Amino acid sequence: MVKKENKIEEIARRRGIFWTSSDIYGGVSGMYDYGHIGTLIKRKWENTWRKYFLGLNGNFFEIDCRNMMPDKVFKASGHVDSFVDPITKCRKCGGIERADHLVESILEGNFEGLSPGELTKLIREHRIKCPKCGGEMEEVGILNMMFPVMIGSSLGYLRPETAQGAYVSFPREFEVSRKRLPLGLAILGRAYRNEISPRNLLIRMREFDQAELQIFFNPDMINDHESFNEISLYNLRILSVDSRKSGIVHEISCKDVSVKLPKFYVYYMAMIQKFYLDVLGLPPEKFRFRELSDEEKAFYNKYHWDIELDIESMDGFREVGGIHYRTDHDLAGHQKVSGRDMDIFHDGKKFIPHVLELSFGIDRNVYAVLDMGFVEEMVGQEERTTLRLPRALSPFDCAVLPLVKRDGMDAKALEIRKTLTAAGMDVFYDDSGSIGRRYRRMDEIGVAACITVDSDTIASGTVTLRDRDTMKQVLIKDRDLAGKMRLYISGEPAESLGNAVIVKPEKNPDMNSGFTYSAQGK
Amino acid sequence: MVKKENKIEEIARRRGIFWTSSDIYGGVSGMYDYGHIGTLIKRKWENTWRKYFLGLNGNFFEIDCRNMMPDKVFKASGHVDSFVDPITKCRKCGGIERADHLVESILEGNFEGLSPGELTKLIREHRIKCPKCGGEMEEVGILNMMFPVMIGSSLGYLRPETAQGAYVSFPREFEVSRKRLPLGLAILGRAYRNEISPRNLLIRMREFDQAELQIFFNPDMINDHESFNEISLYNLRILSVDSRKSGIVHEISCKDVSVKLPKFYVYYMAMIQKFYLDVLGLPPEKFRFRELSDEEKAFYNKYHWDIELDIESMDGFREVGGIHYRTDHDLAGHQKVSGRDMDIFHDGKKFIPHVLELSFGIDRNVYAVLDMGFVEEMVGQEERTTLRLPRALSPFDCAVLPLVKRDGMDAKALEIRKTLTAAGMDVFYDDSGSIGRRYRRMDEIGVAACITVDSDTIASGTVTLRDRDTMKQVLIKDRDLAGKMRLYISGEPAESLGNAVIVKPEKNPDMNSGFTYSAQGK
Repeated sequence: MVKKENKIEEIARRRGIFWTSSDIYGGVSGMYDYGHIGTLIKRKWENTWRKYFLGLNGNFFEIDCRNMMPDKVFKASGHVDSFVDPITKCRKCGGIERADHLVESILEGNFEGLSPGELTKLIREHRIKCPKCGGEMEEVGILNMMFPVMIGSSLGYLRPETAQGAYVSFPREFEVSRKRLPLGLAILGRAYRNEISPRNLLIRMREFDQAELQIFFNPDMINDHESFNEISLYNLRILSVDSRKSGIVHEISCKDVSVKLPKFYVYYMAMIQKFYLDVLGLPPEKFRFRELSDEEKAFYNKYHWDIELDIESMDGFREVGGIHYRTDHDLAGHQKVSGRDMDIFHDGKKFIPHVLELSFGIDRNVYAVLDMGFVEEMVGQEERTTLRLPRALSPFDCAVLPLVKRDGMDAKALEIRKTLTAAGMDVFYDDSGSIGRRYRRMDEIGVAACITVDSDTIASGTVTLRDRDTMKQVLIKDRDLAGKMRLYISGEPAESLGNAVIVKPEKNPDMNSGFTYSAQGK
Repeated sequence: MVKKENKIEEIARRRGIFWTSSDIYGGVSGMYDYGHIGTLIKRKWENTWRKYFLGLNGNFFEIDCRNMMPDKVFKASGHVDSFVDPITKCRKCGGIERADHLVESILEGNFEGLSPGELTKLIREHRIKCPKCGGEMEEVGILNMMFPVMIGSSLGYLRPETAQGAYVSFPREFEVSRKRLPLGLAILGRAYRNEISPRNLLIRMREFDQAELQIFFNPDMINDHESFNEISLYNLRILSVDSRKSGIVHEISCKDVSVKLPKFYVYYMAMIQKFYLDVLGLPPEKFRFRELSDEEKAFYNKYHWDIELDIESMDGFREVGGIHYRTDHDLAGHQKVSGRDMDIFHDGKKFIPHVLELSFGIDRNVYAVLDMGFVEEMVGQEERTTLRLPRALSPFDCAVLPLVKRDGMDAKALEIRKTLTAAGMDVFYDDSGSIGRRYRRMDEIGVAACITVDSDTIASGTVTLRDRDTMKQVLIKDRDLAGKMRLYISGEPAESLGNAVIVKPEKNPDMNSGFTYSAQGK
């Protein structure tokens, strides 16, 4: 049986979603490019993220910083010393392996965060050998994961996270935004990590995109948030360190979570969960927050919970982001190394702001919705493959399809495309091939709705809207189409938009093999 | 007198448009970051570009490729061998200079494209010394401008242009888009050049953004374009090599230009000019195409014209983009080095597609509109500084300002902000400080309109809309506001939207010191 991961990769390549970068040269490990369908999905994810997270507070802004930064930035942040991977080399074939991953491939458990000495000991004790040639492994050493670059004659690095751009920009942005806290600085852009063993398609790349929001705030205020009451009874989906063994996710109200975690932190946990469940409309059971143990936490974080999504083709829950209370680690570090005073005066006090970081791996998130949306089912005798993407992330809001390319249907369809485009919608137009084949093409790239123009459209001004997931079709007056499409994208079921059409059955899809997105606020 | 360049830099820093990257560490030469206002302007430019250029043809798409590519890509493209700068080192202080720029700083003319030998000769003949210490310069050598990176254990480079990503993706995208030509692949993203002497703010950076569209087409079709007749009488603003001495820009119809240049090429020149003059609404006299001489042309281009804008603070016309007929240089190069057959079958023929490249430096374009929009004028006794940005590039479509923070005006203003935001507009809200001061703040960041909520709004439901450039105010019913704002953004003058309000004069601005954008199609 073909693995789901490989099926997704195949469809991604064939339909222009993603593929190995520079593949005519055999590709580069850990590098993928997005084709034009993937780019549309990624842009929609980014714009949905921007709109939602920047909309949380009038003092949250996006900035755009260079990917290359001078070495001192990363001395101050700790990355030069601490952003390292444990590696071990085979004495026989010279192959390099990440030591913790090598141990993990043989023994049960997670070995991230162990020291080189501890890892060497495990390798010796369990006689772990080179996975390529069976040779003996050398002592475990460490390798910095940043890419060094010479900028003119100065040493710099490609940023391993977007965050540092926001920290070094804080003094200026604090002035520009008239010295108000909390101040949020978001960066959407590239980050670079020279992974020893990149793997799992878009999940662990060497060059990837992040969407990160750094919230600078007065640490005295950490135990409250002005809107906490609004979410106080909202249940978070929590996997704490204690419940990790059982694997059971607990639904716990924000109020109860805030016994252990500060309210300012818990408030943003709720906002993150609402982004996934309400804005994207993912099924709750696919989402959880996972508490990290003291050994697993990044060195700069006081509280550190991962945002995890259940990605079937990657064996279950995987980290797609995190919420990190970084304290004053970064600003104090930059103050020390640069000599620039990072103290501010605020509320009659002098202090260095603390930082709450909301961090998201864009490519991982895109892969997660591809995985969740990927459904194969039998429709009559034929197999149908669908990407049940959240409607907000559909590469096109709809496809406009003339039934045939004559009798005025194509002209009418082009006119409808124009109207919908003018109404701000992303519309695909396709007039070649049988209508069934065109439906299947749209299903495979996740287009949420097909609008079909047929002889009834010419005669009586009605079009059909076909729902990607249910294949149900409804009749809509063409002059109402833009308004109805807007409702549809925001999550209305097709049935509520017009009278059902009895169509030659595409046959009922197996509704158990996937799920339907329902509640997409926009 | 303070130079305009320095004034723009000052306001950019103070208002959150751009500043030296990592400036708390003293900055890095050739690196600027965008603050949140600059980021909004840049995003608007990018989205305006996307909408217009991808809208030119249903077969034009955006893709998203890695910034790092393997060395073979750049061997094939010629960049490893030919993407070099002539440099010379001072024997005394060790300072490195770009040899052609050094010569240019002493002698009249443009010395790009001269060989190291020719440059050495000029330096010797004219006894040109080190500009820093007066020392003697060494023989001119060459330095590759690409940033090398080790990806795992493989050599790669950060791309010096986005284009190569589109070329190596061509075979896949050609399949995905069902083998139709012309096929357009656009990339908006970072490019990296290790400039010896980066300078002029956003104009020559080491890490910058490009918007490039590669159009793959059948070379047999180069002498026509299906829509050529529509622009046949449209006048292009042309500075040919022949007229360069006189500096006179000629307005020549596309039909006449197509005597010398292929129609497919001329058609896209017209589309580019329309982007600047019709979509952005720049004054025609600020725009021209500049023909490059054989010596100046990039090595891979058969036809190569620069897109130039008149940037006053940079001493006049500067390159902000180009239109390049790259022939089959790139695809043939990749075929040779990778072994992948780049031939396609199309229209019953086998051939390697040719490429027309439309290339734009995003940062240069952003700087150009900042420069063109920057106006200082006396209003009564006070100086007013305005950024007369094209309305389509305004960081916010409007600001909503309650006259005072009481009597229900603030609540009403917030309600209006919500309505406008729901109608898809980018709205800034500000309720602190005197109304005059708030107007000036919005003027300085180029916000196209201020909507003021006063006691009349509460009493009779009217707001005032204040035009940034003319300072004229008109009365508008609040329920009509979203529709009228849409007209305003698309270029309608404020006067046509409502009755003029007689206001305590902000005094007439000096209308000669700038220009007003008029015709912004959207």
